[in-house]
Amino acid sequence: MAESNRQTAEIAPGYLVGLDVGGTKTAVLVVDRALQPVARGSAPTVVDNPEALVQGIYEAVLAVAPAPILAVGVGVPGMVEPHSGLVRLAVNLNLQQYPLGDALTACFAAPVALENDVRAASLGAFAWLNRDEQKVRHMAYLSIGTGIAAGLVLNGRLYRGAQGMAGEIGHVLFDPRGERCLCGLTGCLETIAAGPSIARHWQADNSSAEAVFSAAHEGDPAARAIVDSAATAVARAIHLLVMTYDVERVVLGGGVLNAGDAFLGPIRTALETMRADSALARRMLTPELVVAAPPAADVARQGAVLLAQQAFDDPKARSQTGETRPKGARIHA
Amino acid sequence: MAESNRQTAEIAPGYLVGLDVGGTKTAVLVVDRALQPVARGSAPTVVDNPEALVQGIYEAVLAVAPAPILAVGVGVPGMVEPHSGLVRLAVNLNLQQYPLGDALTACFAAPVALENDVRAASLGAFAWLNRDEQKVRHMAYLSIGTGIAAGLVLNGRLYRGAQGMAGEIGHVLFDPRGERCLCGLTGCLETIAAGPSIARHWQADNSSAEAVFSAAHEGDPAARAIVDSAATAVARAIHLLVMTYDVERVVLGGGVLNAGDAFLGPIRTALETMRADSALARRMLTPELVVAAPPAADVARQGAVLLAQQAFDDPKARSQTGETRPKGARIHA
Repeated sequence: MAESNRQTAEIAPGYLVGLDVGGTKTAVLVVDRALQPVARGSAPTVVDNPEALVQGIYEAVLAVAPAPILAVGVGVPGMVEPHSGLVRLAVNLNLQQYPLGDALTACFAAPVALENDVRAASLGAFAWLNRDEQKVRHMAYLSIGTGIAAGLVLNGRLYRGAQGMAGEIGHVLFDPRGERCLCGLTGCLETIAAGPSIARHWQADNSSAEAVFSAAHEGDPAARAIVDSAATAVARAIHLLVMTYDVERVVLGGGVLNAGDAFLGPIRTALETMRADSALARRMLTPELVVAAPPAADVARQGAVLLAQQAFDDPKARSQTGETRPKGARIHA
Repeated sequence: MAESNRQTAEIAPGYLVGLDVGGTKTAVLVVDRALQPVARGSAPTVVDNPEALVQGIYEAVLAVAPAPILAVGVGVPGMVEPHSGLVRLAVNLNLQQYPLGDALTACFAAPVALENDVRAASLGAFAWLNRDEQKVRHMAYLSIGTGIAAGLVLNGRLYRGAQGMAGEIGHVLFDPRGERCLCGLTGCLETIAAGPSIARHWQADNSSAEAVFSAAHEGDPAARAIVDSAATAVARAIHLLVMTYDVERVVLGGGVLNAGDAFLGPIRTALETMRADSALARRMLTPELVVAAPPAADVARQGAVLLAQQAFDDPKARSQTGETRPKGARIHA
């Protein structure tokens, strides 16, 4: 280890860039080699065509990042192939079968690591959970936003599954007598608890999940019923994640969680009801199980930075394995 | 590899024993060091008290196994701690907090590896899937019997979870308006598709799942409705396993699957309905996804033999890790 420490002290300067590329904005975090933050930024995402998207991302980074850039990690809302850098499908970015990794590598002249955005954020959440000591090895990050999906860290490693679809629980069937989902099935979790579903149940259109939480807070019985229904579904999703993966923590994140206690409160009440009904549920749904990721933890960009670190440490890793070992407590907020 | 082959040729003789200890019978498989079967046996399981259980297991093995016994692997229907050899709870064996591993080690004077029976069978199923070539790395073994649970092999390794509860999907909530489960929750998968539930839905008592399948086969509409309901729930469980773990294969096993096509047919029909409704379901529920483990594959005892092999190769492994790497195509039927 002395050898390794000496190398660290002698390393050339440079910066790692983490990007959370969303359908509306691209968030940038720049850190130094010790993972200390150096700069943050944000710019609208340009989704007109792939070339404009790449150019927009490049400019968003250049606006805040000092040189040299050593590696870039990118969270993308869609299906990506980390080993090839291909985006198979990212509807909100208007991309299909596009080699985003290669395009960004050409811009930055540095290694680029791509990952699904929820999975990238799960790396950030895992590092945040273990910020003080390496205590948690099995974790699910449950993202509730426009869609619902989970990122899994199992035995301390990111788990992707056979074709990168692990954790796609938004389309698990929750209610056989429920609503038809956009995916074609009936009663998927997303039809109950995703942001657009919460909004749609309140008013046919021109509504938002925020408006429903606000109305529920003011005592509107219909809004409260919608929130309680969504919260019960999220509690069932947490139970599902525990009964399938047997994780130690479920970290909640995503846009709908910005409602804070207005959503977390009913979720905790629904979990308490399950605990009251069942000794097995009490055993599995432990008091410390559910954690809301604070906005300051910035798990999306922090996870992207960890991808960049991995790409820098081992530029060829993306062609060798679909697994990523998060660097745990090495990140700093 | 030449070195390794020479060592194989020079190894001392001896036998590995795999045990599937059920609530009613204990099944024994004895193999040589090349994992070729040497003997099989079966004896009633004695559940009067722990000492009688251990003595019964010991006699069942001695009745068929030649000496010397190098190691023993045991599948137990309950919660076990592989690293300590402790059975935390095995209701059908009348065991609670009992050091079965130590007790059997004392009998056989050989290393003993314990594992939950479904998880042990998943090792056997994984080896059986990869009997010709190492092609599958992500697999779920779904056991449908008195209870329902899944054993997972992810990235080629047995996955246990944080407290050995991974894959306990029998108590995932499938129907919010369903029946109260023995676990205390409402609408668990087991209330729809486990053997006792299928029997209970048909006649209040003195029935069996076999009788329901038989009546359904003869055209009884009530029996067919019960079978179809159970089959739809199993199809949903398969979909759940794919959407959570993104496995390449779901291997079906357990007592209720002894009904063969009388159950498999309706399960495949229910999967086909999901495929017809949804492009995403078509993508995930591939034609090769679902495989029924043939009785001749004997996955329970074969998995136990693999545990024995692991215990022999590395007798201290049980104190070091909760993970088990199955030995893939090295098993012979």
